[in-house]
Amino acid sequence: MRRASAVPAPAVPREEPAEASAVVDFYGEHQAGIATEPQAHCTFVALDLREDVDRAGMARLMRILTDDAARLTAGSAALADSEPELAVLPARLTVTFGFGPRVAALVPEKPSPEWLGPLPAFSVDRLDPHYGDGDVLLQVASDDPLTLAHALRMLLKDARSFATVRWHQPGFRRARGSEKPGTTMRNLFGQIDGTVNPVPGTRDFDDLVWIADRSSWAHGGTGFVLRRIGMDLDKWDRLDREGREQSVGRTLDSGAPLTGSREHDEPDFAAKNAVGFPVIAEFAHIRRARLADPSQRIFRRGYNYDEPPFGTGVSHSGLLFASFQADVTHQFVPIQRSLDELDLLNEWLVPVGSAVFVIPPGCAPGGYIGETLLGA
Amino acid sequence: MRRASAVPAPAVPREEPAEASAVVDFYGEHQAGIATEPQAHCTFVALDLREDVDRAGMARLMRILTDDAARLTAGSAALADSEPELAVLPARLTVTFGFGPRVAALVPEKPSPEWLGPLPAFSVDRLDPHYGDGDVLLQVASDDPLTLAHALRMLLKDARSFATVRWHQPGFRRARGSEKPGTTMRNLFGQIDGTVNPVPGTRDFDDLVWIADRSSWAHGGTGFVLRRIGMDLDKWDRLDREGREQSVGRTLDSGAPLTGSREHDEPDFAAKNAVGFPVIAEFAHIRRARLADPSQRIFRRGYNYDEPPFGTGVSHSGLLFASFQADVTHQFVPIQRSLDELDLLNEWLVPVGSAVFVIPPGCAPGGYIGETLLGA
Repeated sequence: MRRASAVPAPAVPREEPAEASAVVDFYGEHQAGIATEPQAHCTFVALDLREDVDRAGMARLMRILTDDAARLTAGSAALADSEPELAVLPARLTVTFGFGPRVAALVPEKPSPEWLGPLPAFSVDRLDPHYGDGDVLLQVASDDPLTLAHALRMLLKDARSFATVRWHQPGFRRARGSEKPGTTMRNLFGQIDGTVNPVPGTRDFDDLVWIADRSSWAHGGTGFVLRRIGMDLDKWDRLDREGREQSVGRTLDSGAPLTGSREHDEPDFAAKNAVGFPVIAEFAHIRRARLADPSQRIFRRGYNYDEPPFGTGVSHSGLLFASFQADVTHQFVPIQRSLDELDLLNEWLVPVGSAVFVIPPGCAPGGYIGETLLGA
Repeated sequence: MRRASAVPAPAVPREEPAEASAVVDFYGEHQAGIATEPQAHCTFVALDLREDVDRAGMARLMRILTDDAARLTAGSAALADSEPELAVLPARLTVTFGFGPRVAALVPEKPSPEWLGPLPAFSVDRLDPHYGDGDVLLQVASDDPLTLAHALRMLLKDARSFATVRWHQPGFRRARGSEKPGTTMRNLFGQIDGTVNPVPGTRDFDDLVWIADRSSWAHGGTGFVLRRIGMDLDKWDRLDREGREQSVGRTLDSGAPLTGSREHDEPDFAAKNAVGFPVIAEFAHIRRARLADPSQRIFRRGYNYDEPPFGTGVSHSGLLFASFQADVTHQFVPIQRSLDELDLLNEWLVPVGSAVFVIPPGCAPGGYIGETLLGA
């Protein structure tokens, strides 16, 4: 082992505003960065392990990265940190790790969730392998973009002798303090996106998100799906406001369902208009995304992306659709299948990347993320 | 003219936190976004005019973009805005316009500053034409990344029939509220960067930054240089702390000169150490960047960039070195020449992009940016 995994030293006192010093606990039953109120910035990175990394090497990597993450999220420099001044303002930094099929296969005697692997093909997909799959996921999020950049670099430096970067997808929401905590985000279509989401801290959330199987190394973890969804803003511009609201089934200003007046009003899918058609159309996104079985729900924690356009376009934008669910096959796949069959939004959305990871459970001080798989 | 240029309607009242509603005045003697305390996020975009855009067409474009900018910076939707909900939180949004040589050449009878055009070649340059030059500059900055994304898209949509995107460079500093206003930024080397900077609101700043020549259409404007400077973080990592401090001439923790104890202490360039060598080395960045003539100074307003790495690298990072000065030839060029000759930091820095623009003066309600050049 290259170095000891220890509880990070407390951050040095400083005069900075309290919100920049805010710390999200790293250690715990579950990893941070899932039930955490979403930070303003989040970057998802997938690593490919080098050929020669075996179970012991993978455990070494995770001890190092766990130690880095525990220190950095507490506002302390990582052990090998050559820019410690960039580590002092965590701004709710979280680092969340995930494992792809190749990591699970390092320990064949411990069965992994059956759903771990590529999703089934959907007809809407136009997947670019540059944004697909991977062996190790790093989800690094903070309210401060400089903190995030430094933390991610520290992690990648320490991972370098074990792995290479497969893809790297940065995303954003509104800045810290722009809206009250708990405000549902808007995507680049201007839609309120994520209204129907289990609420962290509730039994409902726990049941939907955390893997509960004491015989599994993934117990206390969750399943993670990242879909990179290109949004054709130019085509969306050609749709009028009514068309936009019909396609989603919600009003654009408040996000209320077309049968209600407030964002969190329950949609009335049976309501008909004066000529007998459903108020919320058959093809409306909110109808297609809702299945009859309430256990078939997911927890979304997505981010917008907006990158320099290439060619003659004026935008290269979309959504990093990130969702957590205990069982990807039972929860994510049927929803995506329903949307794939008939969702008017498919006219403007193109999934271009897709990746699935097991998120291992959290760990206690002295332990490391992944120890239930990689340890004895 | 496609539409009237009018004072934006006041933003609708809302419940959002005051800092997200903060407005920087668009109209005035000078354009906003220069003396403005730097926002957390800034994107620089250069446009290439379409072949057939003449003086009248350029004036039409600037009327449209001025109207968009005036509305959006006030927290109101632009006239053709199809996502008005994304416009309500300006978060100190500013839009600053600049003109390249081709725009100036549309009005040959009005002489433009002699320095408008590519900088002289420097030996350190490894310029990529993908990040160079351009006809029209948009500098769009806000404390909120979603606001910035929406505003930039509105401007690019309205510019589309006149121009194409040449380059697009997003940058960031610490988040709003992470540090006290006036704190000097740190770059991705961990250095405090920009200590010696004229202070907006002072006579010194005004003299250095604003073009004062009542016979020129650029009177009340300024000169803008954007240098995209790649920072070799991997190579920098191999340098120890003392080597880093020697190369800059400042301590890394406080940013104090090696002859002082606080960031804003005046460096003592004559001080010698026990064995008779200068405390601040001959090749130290702060010595090379300081010229004897105090009129040869610039105002820096730079941003970090950190983009997905390509190939086997773990970072693709650097500095968008943005500076404003009344006379690029008299102020920027000699400093850059001194650094080019002998600056130890050249070991780790590579300029990969370079562009120069005239920033026209501000305008009053009913007017438009660029009217002193393009108008009668």
